[in-house]
Amino acid sequence: MTDLSSECTEQGSEFSAVDLSSLGIREGISETIVSTGLEFPNAAPIGIIVKGGRPFVRLFKGTHTWANVLNERFLAANIVYNPLLFVRSTFFDLEPSEFDYVSVRGLNFPILKEAVAWVVFECINIKTTDQALVADLTPLEAGFNEVNRKDLPVPNRGFNAVIEATVHATRYQLSGNEKYLELIRHYETLASKCGGENEKKAMKLLYEVLGL
Amino acid sequence: MTDLSSECTEQGSEFSAVDLSSLGIREGISETIVSTGLEFPNAAPIGIIVKGGRPFVRLFKGTHTWANVLNERFLAANIVYNPLLFVRSTFFDLEPSEFDYVSVRGLNFPILKEAVAWVVFECINIKTTDQALVADLTPLEAGFNEVNRKDLPVPNRGFNAVIEATVHATRYQLSGNEKYLELIRHYETLASKCGGENEKKAMKLLYEVLGL
Repeated sequence: MTDLSSECTEQGSEFSAVDLSSLGIREGISETIVSTGLEFPNAAPIGIIVKGGRPFVRLFKGTHTWANVLNERFLAANIVYNPLLFVRSTFFDLEPSEFDYVSVRGLNFPILKEAVAWVVFECINIKTTDQALVADLTPLEAGFNEVNRKDLPVPNRGFNAVIEATVHATRYQLSGNEKYLELIRHYETLASKCGGENEKKAMKLLYEVLGL
Repeated sequence: MTDLSSECTEQGSEFSAVDLSSLGIREGISETIVSTGLEFPNAAPIGIIVKGGRPFVRLFKGTHTWANVLNERFLAANIVYNPLLFVRSTFFDLEPSEFDYVSVRGLNFPILKEAVAWVVFECINIKTTDQALVADLTPLEAGFNEVNRKDLPVPNRGFNAVIEATVHATRYQLSGNEKYLELIRHYETLASKCGGENEKKAMKLLYEVLGL
């Protein structure tokens, strides 16, 4: 791991020297896998939203990520290129052996071994509603995993299709609306046509989860 | 530019030391921007297909890329993360100033300045049909642009939506079938919600091209 913030001067939590933009976290929604949980590490795909330069997240009530952020007020965004890990972390608990730990503010914080890069954020200004919480994010520390970074990601419509199918699968599970199944089948065709082995494995698992 | 094949021993065109996999070009279809044309450089989004370890392309008859590959039998696959460049190179000629040149087999071959990495391929076993040509690809030489590589790409549904919309826009232009317009509008919403500035610019240009 390369520590990106090793040259930081201590400026308090409001101002951090972590450059989110060079980590690819920019305006719009960056699809990361968020790890949380100092005691029991957990991971789930979460979009890191940046609007007008302000990074924040919206977390649905009742999820492990929601509970951990409410209790501990930290999260790590892991940048991951493996489509299977997006599907697995959506529907299953990852193995404890899939986490590494980084020291941030004296805490041992869980990140994903498969991450190409990670950022640990403090979650501030937490606002809760009946259905969700919204938290602003202050980046505290970040790092690259140079071994994982070795292989360049190339735009692949199959990978993208797995992400879309996963989004629609969670909506289908919540609503039961069959329009999502049609979309999922469309993206399965695309993943099968344009994807590689991991895209095919990911869609197979997603179909198993949905009983298709 | 870092020359990836500088440690190659000369093995002839059938066997090359360029590691396509570390360049992210793997089983499935990698969405690259292909540059061709020793005299008049040209660029267009083309999928590099790898099936059972065999890299090849399918090029539609009548395009500049098709003509250049038939005449010159080389192409460069450029790995690009800028969605605007995908839309611009689909519908317009890029400026001559947007190309760099690399020396391959004594030829000055055009690549894109914005490429994060590039591979020059020899096109062999070319088969032509009424509508297209199919060529097997032998990688000759590859390089990274470390400056462009500095910023990590993070999965972004907005970026992916621009790629999908561009694919559907070319199909719409060929067929006039309005079902593609519906898809394009769906992806415009996604690009607007999840994308950043470049995704928004890209979709705006695509809408202008289609007269929407």
